[in-house]
Amino acid sequence: MLSSHVIADADFVIAPVARHVFGSFVEHLGRCVYGGIYEPGHATADANGFRGDVLALIRELGPTIVRYPGGNFVSGYDWEDGVGPKDQRPVRLDLAWGSTETNQFGTNEFMDWCKAADIEPMFAVNLGTRGAAEAQNFLEYCNHPGGTHYADLRRSHGYEAPHDIKFWCLGNEMDGPWQTGAKTAEEYGRIATETAKMMRWTSDGLQLAACGSSARTMPSFGAWEYEVLDHCFEQVDYISLHQYFENHEHEVDRFLTAIDDLESFITEVTAIADAVAAKRRSPKRIMLSLDEWNVWYRARSGEQLRGVGWPEAPPLLEEIYNMEDALVIGGALLTMINHADRVKAACLAQLVNVIAPIMTETGGPAWRQTIFHPFAQASRHARGNALRLKVDTGTFTAGNQQAAPLLVTAVVHDPDTGAATLFALNRSLDEEMTLTAELRNMGTRRLASADELHHRDLEATNTKDAPDRVTPVAHPKAALTDGVLTATLKPLSWNVFTTIPA
Amino acid sequence: MLSSHVIADADFVIAPVARHVFGSFVEHLGRCVYGGIYEPGHATADANGFRGDVLALIRELGPTIVRYPGGNFVSGYDWEDGVGPKDQRPVRLDLAWGSTETNQFGTNEFMDWCKAADIEPMFAVNLGTRGAAEAQNFLEYCNHPGGTHYADLRRSHGYEAPHDIKFWCLGNEMDGPWQTGAKTAEEYGRIATETAKMMRWTSDGLQLAACGSSARTMPSFGAWEYEVLDHCFEQVDYISLHQYFENHEHEVDRFLTAIDDLESFITEVTAIADAVAAKRRSPKRIMLSLDEWNVWYRARSGEQLRGVGWPEAPPLLEEIYNMEDALVIGGALLTMINHADRVKAACLAQLVNVIAPIMTETGGPAWRQTIFHPFAQASRHARGNALRLKVDTGTFTAGNQQAAPLLVTAVVHDPDTGAATLFALNRSLDEEMTLTAELRNMGTRRLASADELHHRDLEATNTKDAPDRVTPVAHPKAALTDGVLTATLKPLSWNVFTTIPA
Amino acid sequence: MLSSHVIADADFVIAPVARHVFGSFVEHLGRCVYGGIYEPGHATADANGFRGDVLALIRELGPTIVRYPGGNFVSGYDWEDGVGPKDQRPVRLDLAWGSTETNQFGTNEFMDWCKAADIEPMFAVNLGTRGAAEAQNFLEYCNHPGGTHYADLRRSHGYEAPHDIKFWCLGNEMDGPWQTGAKTAEEYGRIATETAKMMRWTSDGLQLAACGSSARTMPSFGAWEYEVLDHCFEQVDYISLHQYFENHEHEVDRFLTAIDDLESFITEVTAIADAVAAKRRSPKRIMLSLDEWNVWYRARSGEQLRGVGWPEAPPLLEEIYNMEDALVIGGALLTMINHADRVKAACLAQLVNVIAPIMTETGGPAWRQTIFHPFAQASRHARGNALRLKVDTGTFTAGNQQAAPLLVTAVVHDPDTGAATLFALNRSLDEEMTLTAELRNMGTRRLASADELHHRDLEATNTKDAPDRVTPVAHPKAALTDGVLTATLKPLSWNVFTTIPA
Repeated sequence: MLSSHVIADADFVIAPVARHVFGSFVEHLGRCVYGGIYEPGHATADANGFRGDVLALIRELGPTIVRYPGGNFVSGYDWEDGVGPKDQRPVRLDLAWGSTETNQFGTNEFMDWCKAADIEPMFAVNLGTRGAAEAQNFLEYCNHPGGTHYADLRRSHGYEAPHDIKFWCLGNEMDGPWQTGAKTAEEYGRIATETAKMMRWTSDGLQLAACGSSARTMPSFGAWEYEVLDHCFEQVDYISLHQYFENHEHEVDRFLTAIDDLESFITEVTAIADAVAAKRRSPKRIMLSLDEWNVWYRARSGEQLRGVGWPEAPPLLEEIYNMEDALVIGGALLTMINHADRVKAACLAQLVNVIAPIMTETGGPAWRQTIFHPFAQASRHARGNALRLKVDTGTFTAGNQQAAPLLVTAVVHDPDTGAATLFALNRSLDEEMTLTAELRNMGTRRLASADELHHRDLEATNTKDAPDRVTPVAHPKAALTDGVLTATLKPLSWNVFTTIPA
Repeated sequence: MLSSHVIADADFVIAPVARHVFGSFVEHLGRCVYGGIYEPGHATADANGFRGDVLALIRELGPTIVRYPGGNFVSGYDWEDGVGPKDQRPVRLDLAWGSTETNQFGTNEFMDWCKAADIEPMFAVNLGTRGAAEAQNFLEYCNHPGGTHYADLRRSHGYEAPHDIKFWCLGNEMDGPWQTGAKTAEEYGRIATETAKMMRWTSDGLQLAACGSSARTMPSFGAWEYEVLDHCFEQVDYISLHQYFENHEHEVDRFLTAIDDLESFITEVTAIADAVAAKRRSPKRIMLSLDEWNVWYRARSGEQLRGVGWPEAPPLLEEIYNMEDALVIGGALLTMINHADRVKAACLAQLVNVIAPIMTETGGPAWRQTIFHPFAQASRHARGNALRLKVDTGTFTAGNQQAAPLLVTAVVHDPDTGAATLFALNRSLDEEMTLTAELRNMGTRRLASADELHHRDLEATNTKDAPDRVTPVAHPKAALTDGVLTATLKPLSWNVFTTIPA
Repeated sequence: MLSSHVIADADFVIAPVARHVFGSFVEHLGRCVYGGIYEPGHATADANGFRGDVLALIRELGPTIVRYPGGNFVSGYDWEDGVGPKDQRPVRLDLAWGSTETNQFGTNEFMDWCKAADIEPMFAVNLGTRGAAEAQNFLEYCNHPGGTHYADLRRSHGYEAPHDIKFWCLGNEMDGPWQTGAKTAEEYGRIATETAKMMRWTSDGLQLAACGSSARTMPSFGAWEYEVLDHCFEQVDYISLHQYFENHEHEVDRFLTAIDDLESFITEVTAIADAVAAKRRSPKRIMLSLDEWNVWYRARSGEQLRGVGWPEAPPLLEEIYNMEDALVIGGALLTMINHADRVKAACLAQLVNVIAPIMTETGGPAWRQTIFHPFAQASRHARGNALRLKVDTGTFTAGNQQAAPLLVTAVVHDPDTGAATLFALNRSLDEEMTLTAELRNMGTRRLASADELHHRDLEATNTKDAPDRVTPVAHPKAALTDGVLTATLKPLSWNVFTTIPA
């Protein structure tokens, strides 16, 4: 049997875990909006057409901020199309996904939905077919109180109070050849700078994110980040990272090292951002926004990727997640927590139906995919300070990794409530692991809950008819004695131990 | 007396001659549209205002595809100005030609005219003052069946069926300082790429042509093609060539070597395109579109080039062609045929009145210029495969050429009908030439027709009152015996021999 | 006592002093327009709402041309917002100055005001958020007689005759990071070129000014001018210079050498422009337009620089000028006159309230600041040829200058009227200066007037209640005998001696 030992001391803090790390993403793509969060006529829909069953699952999932309206979609989107009387909104071709966009859902509907879901919005502006002036107009429409053309236009649409949207993405994946209006690093660095300036002059207190590489595997990765930040360093708060994990060969050990690859990705982007800071002797630190991340490799081609014949809200990117995907999602969240000093935002892509933790049937029920669970647990329990751990564990070799730790773990301690949660992923394919974890300088405490997510079939999924096949259960072997947590972790299991003051 | 010998074997094929090589060009320029193809109130005009006499001549001329609406004009053109109710169309300044544009003729009128003339359209989009998004809107207006804003706009204008326009030019002569919104090679390579992407996503099966140099004599020639294609190689099918032959010094021998210079131009652009392919190890071959070509040097300055006082449809570029121009036009067509593997489109610029094979008097008759004839003959007879010939002939020295062949010739064989046509230009200034040509592997055949275009006065022209001064006549000295064509070619004569299965 | 000797010979001419050197500037900024030149309801306002008291002072000040509508403002300005029925004009956020722009004053109102003030307009186009096409539309609106969309739009707004605006600035301070839509030198060189082309094709006889550096202290100064002109050399007539003098340390001697620094600035930009000309072996000479200049350092931060809470026409940049500022303004004017061969335009920034020679109280009176006087005197008297002088004077060391001449002087001779004016600034802090000046080859003449501007308190200002504390008085010690002017110049005094044929 394997054994691992962890020391977590409340005095050794990496940083508070930003609540924005538990964000998600709603794009006008497939059935994420239409038939996902919005389905007038659905049995559970409210007066706004928001599905109540989906809202309930979202509240359980616990996303803190939701990116909107894209993604690739935004690079061809005219925000004006989605506001004002619904019967006057134009129908458009969505070139990004080969779909027809009716624009029956837009900015104001999304803001209403955010209120209903108690979620903060993260908006992206279109830097594909448009530029700084249109972004400014949109921001004025959203955030300016009144008395000007665009502010009064919003008010005439029934929204007297400004939406006060704070977090904005300056375009989406502008380095990607697939992107409408893709840019060179210089082009993007320039347009991001000029757009950011106009936005900041329009509204106070904005958080602005520049596009990093659309993937760590892009040939221009690194050079892109450096040149973009060299232009817009003074104007932005975040650089984005996009990461989709793939498992085409169904090699679970290789797949699990995606977690370590993400760690490298985070480390590398941090280094690049700080290199740009160094060049200008600046103490400013650019933060990281992992504003698209998930497992995605099955529904990624052909008619699952792009509509044929310009359908409305076709079933696109409807990835069905299994047990092993849940392990990777959990592990990736721990990596973000362990980089809490720089990873200040992240968006699980996406929220409903489209590579999503929540699935629906249009006109039917909604249910939780496997990846729902580690995300919900992390959002619920990872509150407070991420602690800088000492971890002794074994290693394995797979993929790009020569010595990947068998135990992936993180401990978050909340100085306000005294709660401390240890998350633990045993990456051994076949061996149980004995875990001992010292929780130092947190006072006397007791185990409040212990959960385990495990399934002997790594390909087990949740479906409409079997929605809880993969779901957390009470941990069978866990105890807290004299500040030392002991537990036995099943091979390929995800575990969450919450402790509170005794 | 000179003698030349040709061997043409049906088994040695360069490539089929693309029908698009016999294209022409209608620009909003001078009297090409207004008073040319379109003149409501003219005695021969139909209900659409299309001149019937011009249409009849065009059917005889035989252009297969016609480029529209420019040319320099397109770089300042808003397509929306030319659609919808005519009385609501705005009057604009046409900066390219110093004219006032009434917009009474536009996209839909041109499509109606194409149908009437049985001609395929080749549209250019404005990449001077506009970009990818407007090009996409225009394409959606033209080609999308319905159900979206722009498709439904077209339908509301009375065009229920999509126009289904396949061939598109990505701007016009963007390297030229005279161009509205001229671009550097990088700027143009980028905008062409992003425009092509949006267009391809909007409509299937497009043929897209990027702008090459506006002339082989541009200082940036070569470097321009390389950098532009380095950006947009994956997105385009064609690179354009523009070639206007000049004869300011009236040196007929130098003028005739323009044909060989065109050969070099074609060879050079082919090499550049393949060099870009090589760099990316791509088997893709970019084809050549000679989408503007003609003799043009007389009506090229002052009030013949540009309107004064912003007139409507002034007489601009009304070049009057003579006998020697017809020889150059014929020879250039043979060069294109002999590069049938790469020259897949070409547009004689232009169609009516403006550097054109057809002239009209506004309110009066229409007639054929000298250059009408070789073009009409080539379009009619150059059907099928261009053959790779063995040619023995003499040479002469003039212009840039040390050893220009006295005989310029091409043979096209149609495997379907069995017809085979030999075109022959004798470039000797003063000597007759005995031609013998073996037509191998084509079976027993007979001479179906033989025509000669010749005039002792090289400056002879066709006019309203003498419209047939320069016109083909039956060849006086031609015979086909045992598969060997024999003929005597007059000095500075253009000859066409068609043979068919016996 | 110091002594200086000047020789001015009517045969040694630098160049005629361009009347455009005595330009000024009206920006939509603070109270320059609203509450400055335009205040409907003011006791002196005419039917157009133009303040009569301000107009009277402007006629006395004598600006010949006035730049409009910005400045930083123009880089976010849509000209369409400011034309047409006033009740339909949109209210906009002015991002440049944090103000709300009601657009009740716009292009046509400005043109009416220019007529009332007998001043030529100098318009700037927006190259921040817009480009060549919109600039062309605007120019067509202003200058095209009629028969096209934009010309007829102007006519529909009540302006049948074209405004015929000749002098245009291609954007404003496009190198400044503070500028809406700032540009790199390449970006700006390109957009300026393409904009200039479209403008020249639209309207004949334009004078076009490209943006030079927004200050000589910009890190890109020099490189900017070279690269910009390398692009647009053939298309423009002027390169702009902006110069604001500062005196944060209240060191009067250092402050006075700003005049010499301006001399260097002019010399340097001339050299750069001629270097670009040299590269293309061009005899063309780019002229200099000092289209923003003044003393400005007090009201340059915080709420004096930028509105808080988006006020309408807040009191911004309301610099109060004192005696020493007037000396610097006078000296700077002499430097421009002494470079009359290249400095062909200049705009004192600005005209009313905003870093301005004229102050008003909204609803109250208007008065002259100290700097009003040297400007008014120079505009009135510096007519004709600037003469190339021989000057013997002492020097002093301060700021960047090792040997700054104590006497700053210029002589302008009008061959038409025979008038000749000598301007003299004694920069000695504490010594009087005996001036002798030979006026050669001007015939017999007499002293027509002699004025002195001096105040023992260098910080003396003019206010609403004491509007004439600093004002010129008759010179106490001046005479003209046998063509030799003799005068005693007080320390830190500005002196103007006008002579006319006897």
